[in-house]
Amino acid sequence: MRVKIMGAAAGGGFPQWNCGCRNCSRLRLRSFQGTARSEVQAAVSSNGSDWFLLGASPDLKTQIDHFPALQAKSGPRNSPIQGVILTSAEIDQTLGILMLREFQPLTIYATKGVQQILRETNSMFQALHRVADQARWVNISAGQTWPLATLNGADSGIVCDAFRLPGDFPSWTPASTRAELTETDAVIGLTLSSSSGKTMKWMPGAPLDSPELIESLEHCDVLFLDGAFWDDDELIHAGVSGRTARIMGHTPISGPGGTLDLLAGLTRPRKIFIHVNNTNPILDEASEAHAQVRAAGWEVAYDGMEICL
Amino acid sequence: MRVKIMGAAAGGGFPQWNCGCRNCSRLRLRSFQGTARSEVQAAVSSNGSDWFLLGASPDLKTQIDHFPALQAKSGPRNSPIQGVILTSAEIDQTLGILMLREFQPLTIYATKGVQQILRETNSMFQALHRVADQARWVNISAGQTWPLATLNGADSGIVCDAFRLPGDFPSWTPASTRAELTETDAVIGLTLSSSSGKTMKWMPGAPLDSPELIESLEHCDVLFLDGAFWDDDELIHAGVSGRTARIMGHTPISGPGGTLDLLAGLTRPRKIFIHVNNTNPILDEASEAHAQVRAAGWEVAYDGMEICL
Repeated sequence: MRVKIMGAAAGGGFPQWNCGCRNCSRLRLRSFQGTARSEVQAAVSSNGSDWFLLGASPDLKTQIDHFPALQAKSGPRNSPIQGVILTSAEIDQTLGILMLREFQPLTIYATKGVQQILRETNSMFQALHRVADQARWVNISAGQTWPLATLNGADSGIVCDAFRLPGDFPSWTPASTRAELTETDAVIGLTLSSSSGKTMKWMPGAPLDSPELIESLEHCDVLFLDGAFWDDDELIHAGVSGRTARIMGHTPISGPGGTLDLLAGLTRPRKIFIHVNNTNPILDEASEAHAQVRAAGWEVAYDGMEICL
Repeated sequence: MRVKIMGAAAGGGFPQWNCGCRNCSRLRLRSFQGTARSEVQAAVSSNGSDWFLLGASPDLKTQIDHFPALQAKSGPRNSPIQGVILTSAEIDQTLGILMLREFQPLTIYATKGVQQILRETNSMFQALHRVADQARWVNISAGQTWPLATLNGADSGIVCDAFRLPGDFPSWTPASTRAELTETDAVIGLTLSSSSGKTMKWMPGAPLDSPELIESLEHCDVLFLDGAFWDDDELIHAGVSGRTARIMGHTPISGPGGTLDLLAGLTRPRKIFIHVNNTNPILDEASEAHAQVRAAGWEVAYDGMEICL
């Protein structure tokens, strides 16, 4: 299974359009040791021809422009993209769906709650249903395991397992809709298994809030984990928000009870931080924070990163 | 007044993610004499510091990355973007609004009907109202003239005039909402006047359906006009759609009753085609179509084009 990281940043990307923090400013001035990153997006394929997207970021169009394997081949309308697996209804995980609206067949896997928010409270998503053979939504739920199928019904060679992650539905969910939703539908993580038996966990935006969740991370070969913030009070220090990482639903990387601390005993998986916020010092490859992360055996995902398993 | 063209392509951009037409394929293979184009987007400024967007394309984030004048300055969250003027509710004209959601003040000018579709039938737009000082919507309507004001209430030096264009609300507008809308709110064109008295017309997506509309084009210094299709049956020949340009609401550039024909007598304005579809041969600078357009005194807008007036 090929895993392509098309975007590695948290919502807003790096640099963020309205951010003049130390990282963003230096990146724009080309005095930063590190690279720009678009919003979190991955694509996976077992055969190199049929691809599935993990999430659909607002940067998806540009991300496809940067990844030839996802581009149309010669001839009328066509795409190697078979489907999209949505892990929440947040804008930075779903907006790209609307960029895949040009009358192209597409399977979209999402929980019932995520579908309800997107399809019943956002009329724009009807643009995916202008012709008969366009988007097909498939219900998934935490606890479910299913094989990913290509658009012509063939086995993709990838098996997907959804599990519940802590987190809520988006803040903009209408109250009347929210009252109808099942809490376990809000945010899911994914375990993808390749035909070689290797597994990858995809958890780009949730805190490590239970010993069970932490223990489960040992059971994979590659782990993509939320690396939004280095410090709990990073946004406060940067002067861009009054909220801590933990209040926003993220486990900071550093400090007691931070990710490095909680996962110091993790031995099996290759460990990769993704969904990195523009203010996070680990983006700066010359920083002490970056050195600490690397010394602890972690990698920092970047746009264009590719893994085979 | 500085006018920056940040994107010049029709919906889907060029190349389009799921298109393998002659233009898109050759562009990907680097055997095309012409440049990639993102979806239609312009920014205007009278003082070079305070900018207003015309529309908000799905490519807006990348377009800002390519245009330093719109980027944040050093320091916490900030942006030179003062406001956005929406000319329809179509996804390719409005989706970028959701990329400007990071708690940043922003004035959004739109007709009542466009606002109703976006704000009342798309819950995601509530992400623009998470804090008190975020998006502020201002009602505009065809026939209205108003000065653009900066976020601190200063005169921008640009006066905006909205006029009705032929066209309907998006196909995905819910029927119940559609029944409440005023037809004249669907699509507007803009005339922008600079403090020097020069004027520009912005009409990126509507057909030339009346002698009055055609006559009005003489009354400006720069004209940006819809150049989506060269031939009426261009999409049919490309094998990507069964619909003609005219049925889709566009006047083709070539042929009897085409734009070159209808506007052969236009003398005053500088004439520029924008909103060019990926299948249009005028994108190919080696083509006969491109030569004909240039011989008729027209330019083809491109990403990065800049005009002063």
